[in-house]
Amino acid sequence: MLYEITVPPMIKMLGNLVHLLEKGENLAAVKKFEPEVLLQSRLAPDQFPLARQIQIACDTAKLGAARLTGKEAPTHSDNEKTFAEFKTRIQSVITYLEKFTVQDFKESETRHISQPRWEGQYLTGKEYVFHHAVPNFYFHVTAAYEILRHNGVEVGKKDYLGPLPFKK
Amino acid sequence: MLYEITVPPMIKMLGNLVHLLEKGENLAAVKKFEPEVLLQSRLAPDQFPLARQIQIACDTAKLGAARLTGKEAPTHSDNEKTFAEFKTRIQSVITYLEKFTVQDFKESETRHISQPRWEGQYLTGKEYVFHHAVPNFYFHVTAAYEILRHNGVEVGKKDYLGPLPFKK
Repeated sequence: MLYEITVPPMIKMLGNLVHLLEKGENLAAVKKFEPEVLLQSRLAPDQFPLARQIQIACDTAKLGAARLTGKEAPTHSDNEKTFAEFKTRIQSVITYLEKFTVQDFKESETRHISQPRWEGQYLTGKEYVFHHAVPNFYFHVTAAYEILRHNGVEVGKKDYLGPLPFKK
Repeated sequence: MLYEITVPPMIKMLGNLVHLLEKGENLAAVKKFEPEVLLQSRLAPDQFPLARQIQIACDTAKLGAARLTGKEAPTHSDNEKTFAEFKTRIQSVITYLEKFTVQDFKESETRHISQPRWEGQYLTGKEYVFHHAVPNFYFHVTAAYEILRHNGVEVGKKDYLGPLPFKK
């Protein structure tokens, strides 16, 4: 179950995030401003800018899958400066996630998940997904969306959700 | 499975949303401005204000559970004006969600889910949860958070996530 709640939706949403960023790049080209201005924009002075929102969305997805399955996650040095570099990072996380299988998550529900800032405390894999990884992941993708929209980028709900697999 | 992905996390996040709104009310009291100013604040001129973000978060949760189980959802008239009224609305959705059981969701994965604007098209219950209800729900809670934070309300990630069930 935890595979289905994390890997395929995160792959889709990271693809949507690339699309949102491309709309930001397009606005910069049309209005002739440096696209990196958007990457340093934020909604509050003590909140992370777009660049960091992208990095955390990527890390939440990457570390979530790694921790739930007991695998190693690829490292990223957080030194991206351009939209092209951020899109490459997102794509590398998508490629990483695509290698996971349902089988990898076989013991994930009861696995003890921790991270350094939790000071030795842990959550079960299932608690980690519902209380931490999923709400955090959508939080950072939405924060990225809101920063873009607040700066005049024409993004809408359809860009955030991506295509829906409608049937007739 | 769909019960676990929707009902308990949405109950928790709606409780967190009440807490976020109370931080907004507190700031208004301290700074002596009308609390309703926050409810009409927005991040872009063509985006919904906080009031509507709360209503849609509520409706996504309420209608999600109702559609997935073939039940009727309670109606809300969208005429809330004060923080107290919005908190009452959120609480009424929490109370509604708390009545659902795993058993209610027995046929939810394959149920055909539609809504008027989809013009006769449908998603299966499972597709609806992953492609629509879950990303939409977190989107609107996060949008509410961002509007508050952008307006100086001291909310942080812990307020958004709520308490984590840590173990030692």
